[in-house]
Amino acid sequence: MGGTDMSVLYGIGLGPGDPELMTLKADRLIRAAAVLAYPAPDTGESFARRIAAGAIRADAVEIPIVIPMRAKRFPAQAVYDAAAAEIGGHLDGGRDVVVLCEGDPFFYGSFMYLHQRLSTAHRVEIVPGVTSMTAVAGVAGRPLCARNEVLSVIPAPLGEAEIAARLEGSGAAVIMKVGRHLPKVRRVVEAAGLMRRAVYVSHASLPEERHVPLADAPDDAPYFSMILIPGEDPYAA
Amino acid sequence: MGGTDMSVLYGIGLGPGDPELMTLKADRLIRAAAVLAYPAPDTGESFARRIAAGAIRADAVEIPIVIPMRAKRFPAQAVYDAAAAEIGGHLDGGRDVVVLCEGDPFFYGSFMYLHQRLSTAHRVEIVPGVTSMTAVAGVAGRPLCARNEVLSVIPAPLGEAEIAARLEGSGAAVIMKVGRHLPKVRRVVEAAGLMRRAVYVSHASLPEERHVPLADAPDDAPYFSMILIPGEDPYAA
Ligand SMILES: C[S@@+](CC[C@H](N)C(=O)[O-])C[C@H]1O[C@@H](n2cnc3c(N)ncnc32)[C@H](O)[C@@H]1O
Ligand SMILES: C[S@@+](CC[C@H](N)C(=O)[O-])C[C@H]1O[C@@H](n2cnc3c(N)ncnc32)[C@H](O)[C@@H]1O
Repeated sequence: MGGTDMSVLYGIGLGPGDPELMTLKADRLIRAAAVLAYPAPDTGESFARRIAAGAIRADAVEIPIVIPMRAKRFPAQAVYDAAAAEIGGHLDGGRDVVVLCEGDPFFYGSFMYLHQRLSTAHRVEIVPGVTSMTAVAGVAGRPLCARNEVLSVIPAPLGEAEIAARLEGSGAAVIMKVGRHLPKVRRVVEAAGLMRRAVYVSHASLPEERHVPLADAPDDAPYFSMILIPGEDPYAA
Repeated sequence: MGGTDMSVLYGIGLGPGDPELMTLKADRLIRAAAVLAYPAPDTGESFARRIAAGAIRADAVEIPIVIPMRAKRFPAQAVYDAAAAEIGGHLDGGRDVVVLCEGDPFFYGSFMYLHQRLSTAHRVEIVPGVTSMTAVAGVAGRPLCARNEVLSVIPAPLGEAEIAARLEGSGAAVIMKVGRHLPKVRRVVEAAGLMRRAVYVSHASLPEERHVPLADAPDDAPYFSMILIPGEDPYAA
């Protein structure tokens, strides 16, 4: 943080997908933004841009950050280098830049790759957003965690043994980035005796939202899906 | 969930404290609400009500839910029973009721005690909110968790051995409900060799916000404080 210029890089959380779950602050800053950046796929729409679309000015300069779908580490790093250079140019020119981030920018978000490159020389402000994790609990109608329960947030790409170890002794758990890892995760959850509590939710807060017991989830889950294992007895006093 | 009436019980997340971190949906529903309930202390202002104050109608019926500060289990349960009965009366009369919740309703929130008592016979809708956890990461300017890191959320009232066990093997961790437990937590974090990464944040997003390395945190931390231990190398590719 710091820097000599007064322009600001905003990392703005947009929430899980429903545009009404943006914060008042996100809405205000996006409406005022002259320069915006956001992650985008090779082909098709940027999810972050779609959430914020109603608030983006028609005359805004837009910087899509295109990460090739199956990028290895180095191409992705090169893409962030180029995006950071372009954004840094605007900041040096005295123009604030808003980076649109689905969910919260610092909760498993790619914003950190820009933060890493730009926060030393520029002012950064983070606007936190609603994470997909609590949106999923709301959709499932189940308190996520309570009282003195430990909550473990576990990325599905981890190995079976690692996932099993983290589930053990957790009061509540959430498994992120499910996608094609669903059959593996279901095996681990079953072996841990937690199927009864496990809920699968995809596209929380979007029109295509779906939630079913994990037992009934599709093997080939979409990218925007999560598994929720609430605490044993959420209502215990 | 379900029920015969069409009135709705809304559990509405307000975010960590700054009213601008309310969602557009929370703001809209609060502005429309004729009946509101919220947790309140014996004496002094309700924190949840303070966040939402600018959106509350002057003619709204307000139901403060007063939990005596050092309540044992049974008095607290009796308070929720009485509040649920009063709220249920409004719902039966066809009036929607909005319950104001700091942060997110289902992330260590007391809303679950009303949900438990009212969700069988009434329609419930959860409006997720920004949690204090991601707000704290934003204040600290540190990505909370990244890539395939496991994040552990640990309540500070747990015993030292339990906290130490959950810190071990976590990529990133957050310790909630710090308050008077701060010296104990600092001992555990120190023993785990994590002091270098640990940040203490109190009153995130409020005017009295403060963040310092855990080493410099006050022994008698306020209720609204948290300890953040981001992943080892948040920016590793
Ligand atoms: C790279 S992480 C980004 C998380 C995001 N920064 C947040 O705060 O929610 C992407 C993962 O978040 C989860 N996710 C994001 N949006 C979701 C939604 N609307 N419904 C279900 N899961 C979602 C999925 O597990 C997905 O694989
Ligand atoms: C009962 S929990 C409620 C959490 C809330 N439902 C949420 O989603 O953030 C209360 C704890 O949340 C944390 N907390 C809540 N607001 C905070 C803030 N503005 N700054 C720091 N910590 C906060 C503290 O650790 C506090 O002890």
